[in-house]
Amino acid sequence: MIISVIGAGSCSKEIYNIAEEVGKLVAQKGATLVTGGLGGIMEAASKGANEAGGITVGILPGFSKDDSNKYVNIPITTGLSHARNIIVARSADAVIAISGEYGTLSEIAIALKLGKPVIGINTWNNIEGVIKVNTPEEAMNKVLELIS
Amino acid sequence: MIISVIGAGSCSKEIYNIAEEVGKLVAQKGATLVTGGLGGIMEAASKGANEAGGITVGILPGFSKDDSNKYVNIPITTGLSHARNIIVARSADAVIAISGEYGTLSEIAIALKLGKPVIGINTWNNIEGVIKVNTPEEAMNKVLELIS
Amino acid sequence: MIISVIGAGSCSKEIYNIAEEVGKLVAQKGATLVTGGLGGIMEAASKGANEAGGITVGILPGFSKDDSNKYVNIPITTGLSHARNIIVARSADAVIAISGEYGTLSEIAIALKLGKPVIGINTWNNIEGVIKVNTPEEAMNKVLELIS
Amino acid sequence: MIISVIGAGSCSKEIYNIAEEVGKLVAQKGATLVTGGLGGIMEAASKGANEAGGITVGILPGFSKDDSNKYVNIPITTGLSHARNIIVARSADAVIAISGEYGTLSEIAIALKLGKPVIGINTWNNIEGVIKVNTPEEAMNKVLELIS
Repeated sequence: MIISVIGAGSCSKEIYNIAEEVGKLVAQKGATLVTGGLGGIMEAASKGANEAGGITVGILPGFSKDDSNKYVNIPITTGLSHARNIIVARSADAVIAISGEYGTLSEIAIALKLGKPVIGINTWNNIEGVIKVNTPEEAMNKVLELIS
Repeated sequence: MIISVIGAGSCSKEIYNIAEEVGKLVAQKGATLVTGGLGGIMEAASKGANEAGGITVGILPGFSKDDSNKYVNIPITTGLSHARNIIVARSADAVIAISGEYGTLSEIAIALKLGKPVIGINTWNNIEGVIKVNTPEEAMNKVLELIS
Repeated sequence: MIISVIGAGSCSKEIYNIAEEVGKLVAQKGATLVTGGLGGIMEAASKGANEAGGITVGILPGFSKDDSNKYVNIPITTGLSHARNIIVARSADAVIAISGEYGTLSEIAIALKLGKPVIGINTWNNIEGVIKVNTPEEAMNKVLELIS
Repeated sequence: MIISVIGAGSCSKEIYNIAEEVGKLVAQKGATLVTGGLGGIMEAASKGANEAGGITVGILPGFSKDDSNKYVNIPITTGLSHARNIIVARSADAVIAISGEYGTLSEIAIALKLGKPVIGINTWNNIEGVIKVNTPEEAMNKVLELIS
């Protein structure tokens, strides 16, 4: 099972903690975590998954694996810039969106277009199809309910 | 000047007429029209531009130029599937979105992320940053105001 | 008919003249010219086609249409870096390769994989499948023979 | 360290054995294996790495992770068709090419363009820059010599 966690490249400490907890739960369920590999939500989720013993993949926009945060085990340097967002969405069995701006919105849109479950915490809640939850636990339970 | 017109691959006759009028205005202003090259809004805008003597480019998701509607002068077969949406957004000086679903939303999101003007007719009006207008004329006037 | 002309981003004056002549012949046959939009071979072919009244498309690796040479009518900014080479190859009915290095080789390989005719002038002549010719006229005649 | 093994989607038993041995050595050195995720060389290398306890990533051209061979731990579904070849090349610290046809040639070309070491066994030996070796052990030694 692959779960992508998407969200902005910088975020508040409170949101960081939520994303870290989501990453931890992803790893504890035995799923592989995919993110865009950079900072903010991507780093937080990778940290949580990594410290819980999970595998973390970072689908990077640039050419250097040094761009990735230090919790990414497997950096994939695409060189495709924002088009790598599409790979993050496509590779997932389910997507958990946390906060985020237009880049995150593009990933949400592609995931919904592909018919993948998109669970949202404090994100683009006005988009039909995004399943709103309030906590990491609810997000993970929703994922398991929908793709098992 | 390149203007991308984005929207769903099938649409009502009423919306088709609006998109055709937008395409006509794009051509009359001397701009090149870029679309995703398929049916619905893409076809309607290409028809309008083509019949007004403009150049129409279709950025196709597949491998065959036969996939394009008959009003596309220059079919670009990317073979990238939905990732071609990103090229449609990136290539534009301004984007006019008409109706549309998740694919259109992904293009709107990428265009806004890149800081390009996005004018919307009957589309994802709940997205901050989309400039809502009601008619093809208003859309074209807004484009000219913003990128001239 | 779309003909892609591929080759290095910088070249000798002699090779430049050959590429310019190829571009001119492409336009004179009524075909649309596609290139990677930058300098060297890409500029020369675009110049030839442009001055002969043809349409020139530049599939650019970056985000700014200012990256394109001044003979490109329609700049398509992909933001995909070298992955744009694949679009240059895919969009063509036939590919004419002139000189060039590894980037050109990647385009030749993709074009051959897709079963498109690849005509070569002073290029990777050791690749099976590349049809070697010596002059722009021969290149154009070969294209017309193979795709008409 | 990420090592990409590239080559054709179907191959002889003899070449399969070589690729499997290469995959095994990649895993034994503690490197992550990246391939295109399908059959032939890609499957053989993944099998070797997987059975030696390594991590295997498959960068797939399509949309379904069911396309991947059964030795891929982490299927990344790009939906980019042949453009995924570029990601296979870009993500690697070094590339080992085994046999292969035009698709493999495109990956070799991109890797060389990016300045990455390309080690070849029974492959496009006429391409300048490809370091020819005869055995899996020689290939792995060459990789370690060049990127350590």
